[in-house]
Amino acid sequence: MSTTTATTPTTATELEAILASAHQAAAPWAALRPAARADILDAVADALDAAGETLIPIAMAETNLPQARLSGELKRTTFQLRLFGEVLRDGAYLDARIDHADAQWPMGAPRPDLRRVLEPLGPVVIFAASNFPFAFSVAGGDTASAWAAGNPVILKAHSGHPELSRATASTITVALAAAGVPAGVFALVLGTEAGATALKDPRVKAGGFTGSIPGGRALFDMANARPEPIPFFGELGSNNPVFVTAAAATQRGAQIASEFVGSFTMGAGQFCTKPGTIFVPRGSEIIESLRATELPAPAVLLNKRIQSGYVEVLEALSSHNKVSVLAQGSDPLADPPSPTLLLTTAADLLAHPESLQTECFGPTALVVEYTNESDLVALAESFEGQLTATIIGTEGCEAGDLIEVLARKAGRVLWNQWPTGVSVTYAQQHGGPYPATTSVGSTSVGTAAISRFLRPVAYQGFPQGLLPEALQDANPLNVPQMINGKR
Amino acid sequence: MSTTTATTPTTATELEAILASAHQAAAPWAALRPAARADILDAVADALDAAGETLIPIAMAETNLPQARLSGELKRTTFQLRLFGEVLRDGAYLDARIDHADAQWPMGAPRPDLRRVLEPLGPVVIFAASNFPFAFSVAGGDTASAWAAGNPVILKAHSGHPELSRATASTITVALAAAGVPAGVFALVLGTEAGATALKDPRVKAGGFTGSIPGGRALFDMANARPEPIPFFGELGSNNPVFVTAAAATQRGAQIASEFVGSFTMGAGQFCTKPGTIFVPRGSEIIESLRATELPAPAVLLNKRIQSGYVEVLEALSSHNKVSVLAQGSDPLADPPSPTLLLTTAADLLAHPESLQTECFGPTALVVEYTNESDLVALAESFEGQLTATIIGTEGCEAGDLIEVLARKAGRVLWNQWPTGVSVTYAQQHGGPYPATTSVGSTSVGTAAISRFLRPVAYQGFPQGLLPEALQDANPLNVPQMINGKR
Repeated sequence: MSTTTATTPTTATELEAILASAHQAAAPWAALRPAARADILDAVADALDAAGETLIPIAMAETNLPQARLSGELKRTTFQLRLFGEVLRDGAYLDARIDHADAQWPMGAPRPDLRRVLEPLGPVVIFAASNFPFAFSVAGGDTASAWAAGNPVILKAHSGHPELSRATASTITVALAAAGVPAGVFALVLGTEAGATALKDPRVKAGGFTGSIPGGRALFDMANARPEPIPFFGELGSNNPVFVTAAAATQRGAQIASEFVGSFTMGAGQFCTKPGTIFVPRGSEIIESLRATELPAPAVLLNKRIQSGYVEVLEALSSHNKVSVLAQGSDPLADPPSPTLLLTTAADLLAHPESLQTECFGPTALVVEYTNESDLVALAESFEGQLTATIIGTEGCEAGDLIEVLARKAGRVLWNQWPTGVSVTYAQQHGGPYPATTSVGSTSVGTAAISRFLRPVAYQGFPQGLLPEALQDANPLNVPQMINGKR
Repeated sequence: MSTTTATTPTTATELEAILASAHQAAAPWAALRPAARADILDAVADALDAAGETLIPIAMAETNLPQARLSGELKRTTFQLRLFGEVLRDGAYLDARIDHADAQWPMGAPRPDLRRVLEPLGPVVIFAASNFPFAFSVAGGDTASAWAAGNPVILKAHSGHPELSRATASTITVALAAAGVPAGVFALVLGTEAGATALKDPRVKAGGFTGSIPGGRALFDMANARPEPIPFFGELGSNNPVFVTAAAATQRGAQIASEFVGSFTMGAGQFCTKPGTIFVPRGSEIIESLRATELPAPAVLLNKRIQSGYVEVLEALSSHNKVSVLAQGSDPLADPPSPTLLLTTAADLLAHPESLQTECFGPTALVVEYTNESDLVALAESFEGQLTATIIGTEGCEAGDLIEVLARKAGRVLWNQWPTGVSVTYAQQHGGPYPATTSVGSTSVGTAAISRFLRPVAYQGFPQGLLPEALQDANPLNVPQMINGKR
């Protein structure tokens, strides 16, 4: 008899059964009323909350993250599931539109009765991230939003926390079964090959991913190369530059330095929104504060692969001939590593964007001295797409041009706040131009994330009884309807 | 001196100037208030209406389409521009969302002040279609929606109507200049190479296309293979199957036959929504009516390339050993061709989906006899993604399963109406799973088409004066705002 451990890859036979089951489950799951799906999301959230005492120790053992952080992250994760329940009960996410027939429609031809609503895509493969073992993993935001939209989810576990992935999946599976949900609405798969095979399977209709640029790009290319290309929502990487104006640096340099250190070392720098670069005026108090700062103690990184990747990128960065060390603990390249702050100039950054604007996943950031504040706009222009970009300024300062550039470069622009910490809200935007994401029009955090996994269908000339409920005149679901262009 | 004719391809030098100019124009065009862009769309519409007497004769000469059709199409085109103006004045398209800071946010961490709005992508390359020289060409729906969203448009003219493309472009250019719009907001390019080069240029941020599957797929692949992949919205091809229930065939077979002939021969069958396949009960009156019908007279196709492509596909279809001729005029393969109706069985269609479900662009359709009505669901399942799918049924009939499958397969499902004629409305959906489009979540017709060319940006912690107007508490643009999740 073979033994299955937490890391045993899903076999081809198992995967085929999972794909068939997801395909089978798609229509009944899609047909559930949104409020019924909301109740199920609530039930999963309750089950995960109840399983916290089991799950958190597994997460601690597999990710080296501390208990307080993980219990906060679990809370965020179950909040997120319930928030999507709220979205479902509200119904605006369906974007229901009704055009009555109109013989006088000024287009020059009569308008038929047309009604449009967003419907689920079908089975979605989600590739979990390593750095948020709850919030961007098995029961994370991609899963929550794909489910809420009415799609079965095939979850490709991250190799960094296989035991936790199985335990979370087991909690979910029990909760779904208790709620009478068809088995195919959720399945866990393990192994790179199983994930890729699932993404290429014709029964799968979309993909979601959080992780590295090379990994995400490979999957994006795979999704697009299919005979039937499918939407792929990859959140890849980001440098998250911070631009400190001269006035702000003068007004509160020491405070900015201290807040910056808190932000770039949060979670040992293993956030996709870690501020990787900060622009400060030459000779500013910020530089001296940072040089003198006591950086946080070394923290063990998520796993050995992250550790070795971090050391590799940091070695390359610090050995760059235009980079010097501004501040670091005694063991910057050890395991665990002490945090590091590197220093360069704006001119050097502009001259070497490829090597100096790379994301370094871990407790390191690059401080960039600038001479003229008016150069900040050109410096901002030099960046690729970002998840976030931050301005640290003063009241009444002229930042319009910089804001314009940063809003083009990043999905979220911050003013006098720090990018780490991505609140789950209605107006959140976690995305951005490539390589921040592969899909510039979408977000992976916040209630708008549900739109990724929906597609519009119009019904023309239908009798009331055959229309989806959201499009019926009687509006039995009580969803917001746009009628003849009016809300 | 070199001479420039209507078909002279854009040179590399000209294209570089066009790209630079579009890049330059992006920020000022995006910064215009939506209502100001609406006024400009109106001005372009007025100019095109006024130029009708010049443009329509050129269109007639280049496309062989009749005057009445072309003047109706021009009216549709200018209506479309004005409808997007209405969308801009309404402002809901911005999806403005405001979350106030909330220290008690139940996620477990305080919620910052977050505000999210949709912003333009930047320069868009639009590839015009051949079959609607106004409505899906230079000033067509893609251009109108990309402009409305605030993006400069680089329009790759279709080789089928270069004179009309230049004349339309010239009308637009004069109207935009009169309105004080920066020159880079619109440019026409000619030639396959110029189009491809533009699509690959880093200053271009999205693409739109209407045309064939091979052409669209090649451009889609190009857009995705860029170092920075960009959204590409291709509307490619569709068979638009029609399913006639047994009861409907019995109730009004002759009427259905007559309406079907009107639909598949409309515009000489050169509509992307032409019903290419109709399923009818074996031995139904419809078959006899179609056999006896007098098909419309031959009509000249759009151009010689379309004509030769049509003859090629029709020859392949009619020589298929499972296909016979049901009805045709005397010259089905001549130029101009008389319309053709072919006949096969449901079993043969299922056995040869590749050869029998191909789109045949021109005045031909395939009539498919079925034995059991219960087979319609499996027949529907056998199709790839479609722009439309139609059920011709009777009141009170049980069609739920068929509707479920068709809503998964097609972007628009019709009941007792015909798919040709795509009304420009708020609830229209012109799109569908691949290969109907390369972007299943979008539409290329109707007001929702504007969403394709927008991306979300969130502003965190911003003072009021630095926020985009749509996100300010004072709401100077008076746009709909979702505040703390409530509308």
